[in-house]
Amino acid sequence: MPLYEQIYRYIKENIVAGRISYREKLPSTRLLAKHLEVSRSTVELAYGQLLSEGYIESEPYRGFFAAQMDGLVHLTQEQKICVEEKADKKEPYRFDFTPNGVDLKGFPYSAWRKLSKDILLDDKVELFRLGEPQGEKSFREAICKYLYQARGVNCSPGQVIVGAGSDYLLMLLCSVIGRSHVIAVENPTYKQAYRMFASQAYQVCPVEMDACGMKVDSLCKTGADMAYVTPSHQYPTGIVMPVKRRMELLKWANEERGRYIIEDDYDSEFRYKGKPIPALQGFDGHGNVIYLGTFSKSIAPAIRMSYMVLPEELLRVYREKCGFINSTVSVVDQLIVQRFIEEGYYERHLNKTRALYKGRHDMLIKGLSPLTDRCKISGEHAGVHLLLTFDGGPDETELIRRAGEEGIRVYGLSDYIVGGKAKKPTVLLGYANLSEEEIKEAAGILCGAWRSGEP
Amino acid sequence: MPLYEQIYRYIKENIVAGRISYREKLPSTRLLAKHLEVSRSTVELAYGQLLSEGYIESEPYRGFFAAQMDGLVHLTQEQKICVEEKADKKEPYRFDFTPNGVDLKGFPYSAWRKLSKDILLDDKVELFRLGEPQGEKSFREAICKYLYQARGVNCSPGQVIVGAGSDYLLMLLCSVIGRSHVIAVENPTYKQAYRMFASQAYQVCPVEMDACGMKVDSLCKTGADMAYVTPSHQYPTGIVMPVKRRMELLKWANEERGRYIIEDDYDSEFRYKGKPIPALQGFDGHGNVIYLGTFSKSIAPAIRMSYMVLPEELLRVYREKCGFINSTVSVVDQLIVQRFIEEGYYERHLNKTRALYKGRHDMLIKGLSPLTDRCKISGEHAGVHLLLTFDGGPDETELIRRAGEEGIRVYGLSDYIVGGKAKKPTVLLGYANLSEEEIKEAAGILCGAWRSGEP
Repeated sequence: MPLYEQIYRYIKENIVAGRISYREKLPSTRLLAKHLEVSRSTVELAYGQLLSEGYIESEPYRGFFAAQMDGLVHLTQEQKICVEEKADKKEPYRFDFTPNGVDLKGFPYSAWRKLSKDILLDDKVELFRLGEPQGEKSFREAICKYLYQARGVNCSPGQVIVGAGSDYLLMLLCSVIGRSHVIAVENPTYKQAYRMFASQAYQVCPVEMDACGMKVDSLCKTGADMAYVTPSHQYPTGIVMPVKRRMELLKWANEERGRYIIEDDYDSEFRYKGKPIPALQGFDGHGNVIYLGTFSKSIAPAIRMSYMVLPEELLRVYREKCGFINSTVSVVDQLIVQRFIEEGYYERHLNKTRALYKGRHDMLIKGLSPLTDRCKISGEHAGVHLLLTFDGGPDETELIRRAGEEGIRVYGLSDYIVGGKAKKPTVLLGYANLSEEEIKEAAGILCGAWRSGEP
Repeated sequence: MPLYEQIYRYIKENIVAGRISYREKLPSTRLLAKHLEVSRSTVELAYGQLLSEGYIESEPYRGFFAAQMDGLVHLTQEQKICVEEKADKKEPYRFDFTPNGVDLKGFPYSAWRKLSKDILLDDKVELFRLGEPQGEKSFREAICKYLYQARGVNCSPGQVIVGAGSDYLLMLLCSVIGRSHVIAVENPTYKQAYRMFASQAYQVCPVEMDACGMKVDSLCKTGADMAYVTPSHQYPTGIVMPVKRRMELLKWANEERGRYIIEDDYDSEFRYKGKPIPALQGFDGHGNVIYLGTFSKSIAPAIRMSYMVLPEELLRVYREKCGFINSTVSVVDQLIVQRFIEEGYYERHLNKTRALYKGRHDMLIKGLSPLTDRCKISGEHAGVHLLLTFDGGPDETELIRRAGEEGIRVYGLSDYIVGGKAKKPTVLLGYANLSEEEIKEAAGILCGAWRSGEP
């Protein structure tokens, strides 16, 4: 510890403890320096620090005096032990069919490293400046181009807002639209979005679905003015909203001013039959659709990067109310993903991942074939999970329990339903995280477990 | 375009245009394949896509029929030109004394590149998994240790939340505390925080300050239950809150349940006389202080990384209400900064930057010495800007105008005052962005411009 700090601490402690009392005069710097046999500047530094922090006061021509310390002595400074973090208890499952999995073994590490290195190579000052609030323009242009070609999304780079994950963008959207809205969600729905709306104190209305997705007549009855939907691949049921229902939904939005559809296009990249279903946004001629997309599903969850496309009217509100909010994504990361897209890595990665997932998807369906007399498979051909709906037999909890006993984690549809449970026992099986061999083995075990006890 | 897509498009366009009408039967796949001289599977793929998107419907044993397309024809799909982005009009200033500058020439590019490369070197799957909502535990431990040693902040890693910038963390904090609060801010204040609170629909009360910072008696009168303060170095006046005022503020917070102090410790790293002023949080014995810190000022603005330390009670609320919200910072970036701290780069970088800024600070004060009979310098010895308060002479707008005429951008204190203007003409001069030579030259020009017209 430097000398000046020792002196500073000694005096401070004496003042705090009341041993040097309020208004008591301190020795002059000259005197104290002489007494302690240190240089005068050392003492001046200590006094300067005490003065800055308010432990002593200086009076011109009179010297230094202890300041008033009322109440200070009562305050403790002991390190407090705080709310324990949830222990990361290792799950005992051998196989986890999580519907939120992403294959990471296939992550393009070498391309990522190369781009990352290339971008950091020149000591570019601009890289570390605060970027544009909506995200770097060049990056937004790349996103726009990709969205137009791959998703049929119709927008200009000025409408795109880049953000650190879909949770954040939904939170930002809530700030843009303000609190006086009623938000409809599909039921079952993506609980992360539901929780976000609920945490922001909105009235959230779950709306029932039929085979085409959210029922528009039920939506009308809720009085909602915003509808959060996943039309390309409903989460978690996998329903693709047909063009007719899309038109009905757009018509609903256009019937009253200030109605909006929030289209979450979270995993449209993965479709194993034909080409991806175009986004609802592309059909919107009146600026009623807010479009959300993400790189977290298609590249990696740790890439905290999503984007939102605002229609013109909301864009104006955003600029006015929230335009001051700085971007949540670093410029370096934006440029890495921009080049990842522009240099064709993204397309190659998507194609590779799609093939990988298709293999797992096919293997799972094949592995489950002994069950097809007992249950219906749905939500297949797209995304990274499918659903098994049972007709009779054990209930959902029992199905999950039996799988768990065999070391296999599966998920119940009821978890995704707001205020209720699935009409028929339904289990979700995600396959992105498991290899084909693992899927084959696990599916075999599941068939046995779920058929056991049958005559 | 693949063959199947040509067929898909052709049929789709005819249905949308009404040339194939509702309920009209399509040729069978076998017939169409023969007619077009393509394989039957190509036609099946096209029909499958039309079916998925809802343009056609299939009836068992009967074939495929055009679906109902009411309203579809009215929707346009033309690329819309949207709200223009604000043009990046290049400022004509030769010197910009922005108070928000950060020196980037001194950014430790090679260390950053090395750490970035090292971390990406092994194909570590965990790096690209979704991290913990509060941030990686190892990173939060490093932050905690740093905060305890450097800032006297008393917390456990479980209290730390890492987020993509202070704007985001304030937004998150708003979600945690809910909307029923009145928030007091210092006046003048950090407008970014003020705007955030205002955008989240809080009642925000500007509270007057004296030489010790926010006046606690005025604070009491507002009826506020939250106080946003910058005690280590008030923004923008540079006032250091003395220990007595800190105690008064803590006493205020402790007088009623649910009162909190938000301590924004945005630039405490930079102090040129003695050591940094310890954080207010360290004196808090009752869990009334929410502490905010950032790496954006001390490393680089583009490093979108800040942290918030919640007291125990709010931490519980956070876990319950917002614990589901995913982290906004990528794991890779967190690990880079963690190693930047742990391997001593951060300390070296801070020391280097502090020395650099001190040189600029000293040069600016020296350069402004011809003005000292006309104005008072304050807010010096810390941060990256100082204030010049004039007694008589031209008003603030005129001072800024005259500087601008010489190609120098300076900032008026009035911009930081909520609902009013500075009592005396006061100009802010930030020096982080300018070299010593530039400062010398610009200060000389400013002295001339501001003295011109004098007898």
